[in-house]
Amino acid sequence: MPHDRSPARPKAGPVLTYKKAGVDIEAGDDLVERIKPLAAATRIAEVVSDVGGFAGLCAVPKDVDDPVLVSGTDGVGTKLKVAFLTGVHDSIGFDLVGMNVNDVVTCGARPLFFLDYFATGKLDPSVAERVVGSVAKACKESGCALLGGETAELPGMYADGEYELVGFAVGVVARKKIVDGTRVKEGDVALGLASSGLHSNGYSLARKALFDTMHLSIHDRPPELGGQSVGEALLAPTRLYARHVQAVLAAGVDVRAMSHITGGGLPANMPRVLPVGLALRLERRWLHAPIFDLVRSAGVEEIEMRATFNMGVGYVFVVPPGDADRASEALQAMGESAIALGRVVRVPVDVRFEERVQWPE
Amino acid sequence: MPHDRSPARPKAGPVLTYKKAGVDIEAGDDLVERIKPLAAATRIAEVVSDVGGFAGLCAVPKDVDDPVLVSGTDGVGTKLKVAFLTGVHDSIGFDLVGMNVNDVVTCGARPLFFLDYFATGKLDPSVAERVVGSVAKACKESGCALLGGETAELPGMYADGEYELVGFAVGVVARKKIVDGTRVKEGDVALGLASSGLHSNGYSLARKALFDTMHLSIHDRPPELGGQSVGEALLAPTRLYARHVQAVLAAGVDVRAMSHITGGGLPANMPRVLPVGLALRLERRWLHAPIFDLVRSAGVEEIEMRATFNMGVGYVFVVPPGDADRASEALQAMGESAIALGRVVRVPVDVRFEERVQWPE
Repeated sequence: MPHDRSPARPKAGPVLTYKKAGVDIEAGDDLVERIKPLAAATRIAEVVSDVGGFAGLCAVPKDVDDPVLVSGTDGVGTKLKVAFLTGVHDSIGFDLVGMNVNDVVTCGARPLFFLDYFATGKLDPSVAERVVGSVAKACKESGCALLGGETAELPGMYADGEYELVGFAVGVVARKKIVDGTRVKEGDVALGLASSGLHSNGYSLARKALFDTMHLSIHDRPPELGGQSVGEALLAPTRLYARHVQAVLAAGVDVRAMSHITGGGLPANMPRVLPVGLALRLERRWLHAPIFDLVRSAGVEEIEMRATFNMGVGYVFVVPPGDADRASEALQAMGESAIALGRVVRVPVDVRFEERVQWPE
Repeated sequence: MPHDRSPARPKAGPVLTYKKAGVDIEAGDDLVERIKPLAAATRIAEVVSDVGGFAGLCAVPKDVDDPVLVSGTDGVGTKLKVAFLTGVHDSIGFDLVGMNVNDVVTCGARPLFFLDYFATGKLDPSVAERVVGSVAKACKESGCALLGGETAELPGMYADGEYELVGFAVGVVARKKIVDGTRVKEGDVALGLASSGLHSNGYSLARKALFDTMHLSIHDRPPELGGQSVGEALLAPTRLYARHVQAVLAAGVDVRAMSHITGGGLPANMPRVLPVGLALRLERRWLHAPIFDLVRSAGVEEIEMRATFNMGVGYVFVVPPGDADRASEALQAMGESAIALGRVVRVPVDVRFEERVQWPE
């Protein structure tokens, strides 16, 4: 812990050793030294350092009344396979932090700290450094401390050059300020934040569509992508919405619900934060990255596209109509144009979960 | 999150679907239903339920003054391979919770909550249920809530029948009650808690020794194991020490340091909590599970054994001599016989890290 991932130990020369069994403690020690400054750069005031050889310590902020901890864990799915194929390991950490921290902030929480787990068959410290370095950069951008992590060398568990990457995020919110959707009313407005592409969901389907069905390679630059390669489009890092959420809350907007659009898309993720009997009516179309159209063109029907991918919207705020301008202005002030997606409408209480998002004709 | 691991989504019949791409949402939904009651049984008073579709919520206990959160993440290493070989998936969760929660409590923290990440190539809900069920049981035994988790189906990432398992634990301690080893003094007493076997460290070496060098199989019952099979001995679940720690702290013992003996054994884990210039002198031998001797007999030198395995001691308390009896009695009251390992002695400040544990001749 605290990236003290492989304790120092005797380097003896016995008959059968841990190193001979495939676990290279020295490579691990090397990595720890490389990661230290990256993690240190993410420190926030609450981090309690120089303490806790076995764990990461972080104080509960004193300015949060009746604090509730908000936590989540997630990986980045088979987007990893795209990183392996392209050899680009500098952005996957943004996906990892995005998948976790974007979830945590939906409750109105301020991110506090993050931990990562990196596992591989044979440790390549330079790859691991790039991966964990990108985790650290994304933590910094999200305003949370990279408090610790684990690097596991598991001989025989992963194919050569592959790795698993898992994240854990913890945030904090005052109990009275928890955002949970229960106050959403008919007529409330949904404001969306654009996604950068697929983010970190639906890659098994996208890879099957692009590679197996269309026979594209990661290096191909089909005209639909406007100059980007398939690999570049697929690797577009997940956007980090923590600062957007803090800005909207700080502007005093009465945020009634927030949704992170991940696996299952809008139809799966919006109803999670809408009271029964209410639905989101999407009233306009919006731009999305060209990768969505390319995947669709492989023969994925629209209903499956919408039920798998974020379709260009990575995060949604639900606010009262009178607060929509203030929210948009707070976002505009940080260079973000909110998408006026539509409104909350009344539907029969027995309408199917996934039909509580109505698409424009 | 909250084991809402795969949101409901349309079951359409398109040309190319997520299911055809290897991700079975229905199997995931089935698993969620199986896991719900297991996780519910671990609830503690602080859990905030029916809230947080995207995250797990847990209040900070009000009776902890100036609360500091203590967190850690870890997997169970290649002990997983033994679970795969034996088909026994009912105890690996104890290893996972042990690896994480035993770390967190070394700071004097009370465990609060736990999250698990389970990833596999093709989801077998019955295996996943056994694994996550054992995580839930271990959480309950450690007094922490299983607050959420992620089940990831990653086609092509794992060999058939294999999976990855990662845990994340958060505890809380009053700032003034943080146990960090800084107050350890010459003459303090080290009390050990027995391990059940290898716990979750050194399996790459142990497997190489037993399977590759000694050509044993998991079903073999070598006389050294006294009736146990190799698989049974290797799978002995990691002991959970959270309740022991709470009992000793509740008895008013002045606990000056605690160490969870994991990878690197006593030589790597004791110096992490001893001030520079102090070392632990082990003054006696103690019993350990026969698996250690079997591994050694494959040709692993003693120094490598000690630097890889826990050698029979899973957790160590360092207390002033005057408090040793009280600590032992608190443990005895819960049926645990503490091992009087030895004492803290003075050594030159430049003595090598791993030589700060002195073994009996």
